[in-house]
Amino acid sequence: MEKFEIEFLGDVPKYIQISNNIKELIVEGKIEQDEKLPPIRKLAAFLSVNKDTIIRAYDKLESEGAAYQKMGSGTYAKRRDEGLIYKREYSKILKRISEKEFKGYIDFSGENVNIQYFPVKVFKSIINEVIDRDDIGVFVEKESSGFKGLRECINQRFWDSNMNIKKLLIVSGAQQGIDIISKAIININDNVIVERPTYGGAISVFKYRRANIFEISIEQDGMNLDELEEILKKNKIKAVYTMSYFQNPTGISMSMVKKKRLIQLANQYNFYIIEDDYLSELIYDEDVEYHSLKSMDIHDKVIYIKSFSKLFLPGIRLGYVIGTDKTTDAIIKSKINTDIATSSLMQRALDLYIRKGYWEDQISSMRSEYSYKYKELLKIITEELGDYVDIIIPKGGMSFFISLNKDLIDDKELFNRCLRRKVIITPGRIFFKRIKKDENYFRISFGNESIEEMRTGIRIIREEIEKGKK
Amino acid sequence: MEKFEIEFLGDVPKYIQISNNIKELIVEGKIEQDEKLPPIRKLAAFLSVNKDTIIRAYDKLESEGAAYQKMGSGTYAKRRDEGLIYKREYSKILKRISEKEFKGYIDFSGENVNIQYFPVKVFKSIINEVIDRDDIGVFVEKESSGFKGLRECINQRFWDSNMNIKKLLIVSGAQQGIDIISKAIININDNVIVERPTYGGAISVFKYRRANIFEISIEQDGMNLDELEEILKKNKIKAVYTMSYFQNPTGISMSMVKKKRLIQLANQYNFYIIEDDYLSELIYDEDVEYHSLKSMDIHDKVIYIKSFSKLFLPGIRLGYVIGTDKTTDAIIKSKINTDIATSSLMQRALDLYIRKGYWEDQISSMRSEYSYKYKELLKIITEELGDYVDIIIPKGGMSFFISLNKDLIDDKELFNRCLRRKVIITPGRIFFKRIKKDENYFRISFGNESIEEMRTGIRIIREEIEKGKK
Repeated sequence: MEKFEIEFLGDVPKYIQISNNIKELIVEGKIEQDEKLPPIRKLAAFLSVNKDTIIRAYDKLESEGAAYQKMGSGTYAKRRDEGLIYKREYSKILKRISEKEFKGYIDFSGENVNIQYFPVKVFKSIINEVIDRDDIGVFVEKESSGFKGLRECINQRFWDSNMNIKKLLIVSGAQQGIDIISKAIININDNVIVERPTYGGAISVFKYRRANIFEISIEQDGMNLDELEEILKKNKIKAVYTMSYFQNPTGISMSMVKKKRLIQLANQYNFYIIEDDYLSELIYDEDVEYHSLKSMDIHDKVIYIKSFSKLFLPGIRLGYVIGTDKTTDAIIKSKINTDIATSSLMQRALDLYIRKGYWEDQISSMRSEYSYKYKELLKIITEELGDYVDIIIPKGGMSFFISLNKDLIDDKELFNRCLRRKVIITPGRIFFKRIKKDENYFRISFGNESIEEMRTGIRIIREEIEKGKK
Repeated sequence: MEKFEIEFLGDVPKYIQISNNIKELIVEGKIEQDEKLPPIRKLAAFLSVNKDTIIRAYDKLESEGAAYQKMGSGTYAKRRDEGLIYKREYSKILKRISEKEFKGYIDFSGENVNIQYFPVKVFKSIINEVIDRDDIGVFVEKESSGFKGLRECINQRFWDSNMNIKKLLIVSGAQQGIDIISKAIININDNVIVERPTYGGAISVFKYRRANIFEISIEQDGMNLDELEEILKKNKIKAVYTMSYFQNPTGISMSMVKKKRLIQLANQYNFYIIEDDYLSELIYDEDVEYHSLKSMDIHDKVIYIKSFSKLFLPGIRLGYVIGTDKTTDAIIKSKINTDIATSSLMQRALDLYIRKGYWEDQISSMRSEYSYKYKELLKIITEELGDYVDIIIPKGGMSFFISLNKDLIDDKELFNRCLRRKVIITPGRIFFKRIKKDENYFRISFGNESIEEMRTGIRIIREEIEKGKK
């Protein structure tokens, strides 16, 4: 009962404060889905308010979809964001499998790293070289922005070296990038726009900041900017979060025209673009050119995030952020308050690894191998599932996002059934705060599997879709 | 709006009168931290002045650090936490020195690592052994709680192995521990209690969470629990942050009696204790026993943070957190949303380093060396500064917190003057949100310096104090 306790503030009606408090408890998971809320009389006594106040609070919760009545039984909590809730369940299932034995599974989840391209021996010798070179320096990193050598190396290799290097800081992976940027620029009740669907890890961070999240739809050439502009006209927006290439999960890349317009809108309506450059190394189609939003950032509105972990190796936990002139100091301060600095040895090893050309080699091998797998898998999916599904053609990346008629079988059921047959797909709903009735997707990611394994896996998916029809 | 009313006096420019009035309202608490100031147009109309007058007034407030702009949103009040503001300045000065050339300085700042005890060669061979043993596994860490081997190792060596290991998770240093715990349990407007003075990095995190921070004073045997209980009676408190041994900066340790009472209060008033176990390895005095609050946590209220970086090496960025039954899931979720997981290689290397007994050896060497330096430095300080200062005797740790009569010289001036003579001390004010008129401290930390260097440094401090008198 203590969790319902409130210190009432002066000028907000009590029933609103009570209902807000309960909503927060639900969001935080302190009240569970379908948990019974306290009886009206009891809560009224506990909070020393009138019974009617509680009734009004419960009515408000119900009207907002955060509670429901059961006849003669009381009021029950209803969690929204089923997608995110299901995501946790899904992650647990995956974790359970990977803890036991992953072999024997055909894994389309994309959660498990492709490790075959990582040259352990080379990296080991790089680490030794770095320790011999820098000695104790390897274990001392006082610079919160990161190891200067690595920052310079990134600037030279991946950016116009005219860029002010002060804006570039090393972070412990893209997730930390999102986190520290959010702490630096997003405050409570700020409005943030994300694509729908999008990466759940970003939504979680924005929720921790207590931002209001607006979702806008995504088209074949990137986010729907008319829809965006409608929102901009009516609301003060702090930031737009986007993955410009091979958006997770849809695989969609933003067209040049849209990038230009988005940057122009950022200037006109004064918001930041948080660009999560997810997998732009993996462009397979020659007609796709690489131009990050950051490289086009004439109005100094783009904050850029790049992960090295996704392609390099997750256990390495490295990435970088490029701020804007106005935000960089706040981002660095936020990094300091988050974890002081990123582990020094790994930064120095990555630096040397890039300088010696190994990074380029590794990415280039991955690109040619993945490009091949991508084309083969696309063929297989078209052949095997073509009658049942729609596919977005990503032209790069590591996934296909597939739309399936819900009358055939829903994504969760398909996931469960495939799992029983040792094929792991990703149900689409985990990428939505809330999935609509007619939406039904699943994602197929590739990596470790051979062409033959992928074919077997896709056939099993087809069989389960066909069973679903019956 | 009425509070903004002014009767304008004749000969002071109106914008100055307006800005002074607002500053006064902020100091008096009639305008709160982060409260939005009235829109320019509105305030201009209300005071019957030109819009430009308000713009100038707001500009003045901003330039004086009493207000800040939020892009497109308006101007907000900023309370001046001078201590924290000065801390930034102080950090900048220190950084500038360490970027140039630190040699020739006698460093009592404690910000610079003592690296002489770190066996680089041994650690290098450990890293190689780990890579040979685990191969690619070294670079893949999917477990957000951390490498299982290290968690088990910590549990066995430092804790009762009956503890449920699920509650123990690896973090990237103590600062991240504070950050992820705060995200997990502290929400906007939650009340958090800290000791006064305390570690600025903790205050910053609580401020990011928009918590209300209460400060309570600290006595020779730890925080003033009567004062605490007075606050508890009147306010719902979410968490109390404390360093149980050699508190930073005072060096004070909490007595057994107070620890027991604090735990009892946590149970009675239902709050969490965030225990930052800062330097308990460095106990020099035999009559000081080690009992962490966590080890006494019969009511499951203590969330424990331990850094390996402080004594081990900052560049390593490792530490761990032990949650309570109720908070552990939320802390792990918060870790995932912050940076997914901590770098794997370092965890595995530390694990092997501890298992092979090197950690114990390293700490034991440090303890005996530091114990000697501590005793010598205490003698020197007593001899040289005894006439001017009061010292808290910490019986362990790496610092002395020294109280100085302000009529002699204030901490900032002393810091500046010593700096010119190449002696670095830490001015006490950086550990206070706001320092009171009669408070005047500085901190002397030791580490790399020899006894002779320390003697020279302390003499220079004495000379500057004596000059101050004139």
